Amino acid sequence: MKQETTIERHIIAVLVDNEAGVLARVIGLFSGRGYNIESLTVAEVEHESAQSRINIVTTGTPMIIAQIIAQLDRLVPVHRVTDLTEGRHLERELALIKVQATGEKRLESLRIADIFRARAVDSTDRSFVFELTGSTEKLDDFINLMRPLGQVNVSRTGVVAISRGPIQSDSLK
Amino acid sequence: MKQETTIERHIIAVLVDNEAGVLARVIGLFSGRGYNIESLTVAEVEHESAQSRINIVTTGTPMIIAQIIAQLDRLVPVHRVTDLTEGRHLERELALIKVQATGEKRLESLRIADIFRARAVDSTDRSFVFELTGSTEKLDDFINLMRPLGQVNVSRTGVVAISRGPIQSDSLK
Repeated sequence: MKQETTIERHIIAVLVDNEAGVLARVIGLFSGRGYNIESLTVAEVEHESAQSRINIVTTGTPMIIAQIIAQLDRLVPVHRVTDLTEGRHLERELALIKVQATGEKRLESLRIADIFRARAVDSTDRSFVFELTGSTEKLDDFINLMRPLGQVNVSRTGVVAISRGPIQSDSLK
Repeated sequence: MKQETTIERHIIAVLVDNEAGVLARVIGLFSGRGYNIESLTVAEVEHESAQSRINIVTTGTPMIIAQIIAQLDRLVPVHRVTDLTEGRHLERELALIKVQATGEKRLESLRIADIFRARAVDSTDRSFVFELTGSTEKLDDFINLMRPLGQVNVSRTGVVAISRGPIQSDSLK
């Protein structure tokens, strides 16, 4: 029984038709049943495409995760549901981080950015905006190092994922 | 009257408490009134933070945009609503793009990736995964160039934005 109560983090990709209300139904499924959403992204696969891909990071016991996938699969405008955490996969997130600092703290923010390979994409005499991509943990670490240096504003995407290796038929991997 | 019917694209940032059902309410506001969502991201400002930031790209007449902002502002778990398109701002999106191609087409995909400064983050004898950040248009252009070369899978974040310049008090800029 021990395994059954382990809380796991899963990344689920959902391919949906671009109909009005699709996102509301997907999210309603989570909120109605109390399933957790750690992050969520939704974007058209291409501009003016008829389909969008939703990436959801959720946590739950293996039984809950199985329920989520089965219920998403049953929604009418849903084409495909894929659990990317099942196999080898890549995860990435992007953040724009504004840091307002002066003097030595300003220089320190640049040094940390250099170590993390963050790119300064805006600069004034008292602020920088850094662009950083990586894992959620890497972004968290960077933000935690910046906070003591001054005021910080963060705009981040949440996680997107894709499997390693060739395209696996009939899935979003 | 001409200006009133112009369709504009706006990026709206919403700071919310991490309560169950917040996202459902924000999205319900859009779907219930037929407001368009072009892309949406939601992520905790920091890991295990009590607040999340939602970035929504929407389109509508200036009157519709004003309605959306006013109605978001009225939702209880919403702390702040900021229209980033009002001033100078930075927009970024991230995509993981898997391209399955062979022979000359495989080489062509690498050449295009080089031009776009996309990074190959996974490679097999018949596929690559490229990581690319930039504007929505840049990502669309890249994907459109890859499609004729082979089978393509795309996982993209949607747009996040932040204002240029120092932190503006009482806003998400």
